[in-house]
Amino acid sequence: MSQPRTIALDAMGGDHGPSVVVPGAALSLERYPELSFIMYGNEALIRAELEKLPRLAAKTRVVHTDLVVSMSEKPSQALRRGKGTSLWLAIEAVKNGEADVAVSGGNTGAFMAMSKLILRPMKGIERPAIAALWPTVRAECIVLDVGANIGASAKELCDFALMGAAMARALFHIERPTVGLLNVGVEEIKGVEEVRQAHAWLKGTELPLDYRGFIEGDQIGQGVVDVVVVEGFAGNIALKTAEGTARQIGEYLRAAMKRSWISQAGALLAAGAFRILKRKMDPRRANGGTFLGLNGIAVKSHGGTDALGFASAVDLAYEMAQSRLVPRLAADLAAFHHKLEAPATG
Amino acid sequence: MSQPRTIALDAMGGDHGPSVVVPGAALSLERYPELSFIMYGNEALIRAELEKLPRLAAKTRVVHTDLVVSMSEKPSQALRRGKGTSLWLAIEAVKNGEADVAVSGGNTGAFMAMSKLILRPMKGIERPAIAALWPTVRAECIVLDVGANIGASAKELCDFALMGAAMARALFHIERPTVGLLNVGVEEIKGVEEVRQAHAWLKGTELPLDYRGFIEGDQIGQGVVDVVVVEGFAGNIALKTAEGTARQIGEYLRAAMKRSWISQAGALLAAGAFRILKRKMDPRRANGGTFLGLNGIAVKSHGGTDALGFASAVDLAYEMAQSRLVPRLAADLAAFHHKLEAPATG
Repeated sequence: MSQPRTIALDAMGGDHGPSVVVPGAALSLERYPELSFIMYGNEALIRAELEKLPRLAAKTRVVHTDLVVSMSEKPSQALRRGKGTSLWLAIEAVKNGEADVAVSGGNTGAFMAMSKLILRPMKGIERPAIAALWPTVRAECIVLDVGANIGASAKELCDFALMGAAMARALFHIERPTVGLLNVGVEEIKGVEEVRQAHAWLKGTELPLDYRGFIEGDQIGQGVVDVVVVEGFAGNIALKTAEGTARQIGEYLRAAMKRSWISQAGALLAAGAFRILKRKMDPRRANGGTFLGLNGIAVKSHGGTDALGFASAVDLAYEMAQSRLVPRLAADLAAFHHKLEAPATG
Repeated sequence: MSQPRTIALDAMGGDHGPSVVVPGAALSLERYPELSFIMYGNEALIRAELEKLPRLAAKTRVVHTDLVVSMSEKPSQALRRGKGTSLWLAIEAVKNGEADVAVSGGNTGAFMAMSKLILRPMKGIERPAIAALWPTVRAECIVLDVGANIGASAKELCDFALMGAAMARALFHIERPTVGLLNVGVEEIKGVEEVRQAHAWLKGTELPLDYRGFIEGDQIGQGVVDVVVVEGFAGNIALKTAEGTARQIGEYLRAAMKRSWISQAGALLAAGAFRILKRKMDPRRANGGTFLGLNGIAVKSHGGTDALGFASAVDLAYEMAQSRLVPRLAADLAAFHHKLEAPATG
């Protein structure tokens, strides 16, 4: 059931601030009329955008602040002097229960550091993860961690599996999502120690997910599992590499189509097909990295995106808010940590 | 100048053995008539293929062995009982100076382990790397390590930079190849300790390469540098992810073109353009992982490839053999290690 949900927006985050955030929110509101917003930032700038969008204005509360976190600020700096910034206030709204989820296109490191400080990690979690939606030939899958942390212990990889499964349950409405562990080979002899240990635990522990074992990088886009688990360094590189490859092939395709008049005529006839392809490959459609493992949900939008891309991040935030993800995940994590500590019974 | 070069082929390696290896060699011989081959494996099977290819047969010596390394064998097993196998003999031919380079489509782990044992790592090198050719919008770049080892110290990352630069010099004929270090962000505050330390050394040391700093995954395919350096876990995942993304987009494109009669007609007209695209995206064209850091060159072909793909690996082996890579690289590595040990001079 769709319930009214409130989203806290850092209106100053990202490269374009309110000129992208406000029209982006309006696009999401068209799709989900039950949404309402709190926008934090320079009130005059926000109001100037809201004036053009009366329906959105009616569903939006504006909270003024002059303080902003710059894109170049280091996370530690941002923590020290971040109080009262638009980013800080948006996260605090989730903490206080005024909003269901926070969205920002701002500085990723600062956003994560503040979210950890304000929302606090769930019990037993030291490192929250950033989860990305990854388009596949079937539909979409969830990949995490895509860069919140570098490296992950075996336990943390298992935590990521549970976090990803919780997100898949929320977004894909599957009770037991399939989960794969990203590795360099399908043979058990390969891989790092942490990955092997996580594999053993995921295989040997009763968990609310369907563990499918190791997968390799080329299987992500084939949609073989709902959730792909990997530590943040390799995960971030995989995500960026896939984005780069898609752009590269788009460039090849455009160049090839221009090579002759006949190809150009063909491309003209096939324009509808190219539009579908372009839509499939549009990085704005899968915009939004979800912070998981905190007592509250926060979604990071790409800083350079436009209103359409920002709306994808807001849509994602809305879908996450619709689910009762946090309490369920907290229970799943507690049960797993309890099993890890208890002697094996199997 | 093209000189006669001899390539040692493990004729039993890969999923299809001599039925791919022999016709693959024939394709390369058409391009490089100065080539000759030694083929190791089941003589009857090899001869049966050679009979159809008299020009190749005239340039090929066959050395019979019944012993083969299976694809499922663990590297340690392969080392213990690998002596006299077709893979072993091919590598040994390089060691003995009978061949300039060895090519196999067999078991990667066994191939690397045997190459280390037989050819020995260069002085000061503990971990050889596997380098891949990566198609870019400009031409090609070299990415290493793509899976010889998991993890790499700062010194090893610098060694990879020198190895990759040597390979770029051999293949692209650039005296000072550009090198980038793959990281999760362009800011110096990000990344693992090893990557940051390698960055400092590459920036601060006089080396026979043009170090360009950090790059991210989406820049590989843009061809921003000639050589991309990364440890093997993330490198292998990046490579596989790029392959998977290319396949995924190919599937999108085919599906989109079939959606209407008009699109199909357009696709028919643009068939020439699609052929160019297909060729650009053909993974067989960039087939071949080069083992670097050993006293001799070995090239791993994809095990499941066909004759055209195997020929790409042989072509690569030939181009590597043409260069005086090994002695030059040994000198570069020795000079770098000397600088690391010497006190900084500013």
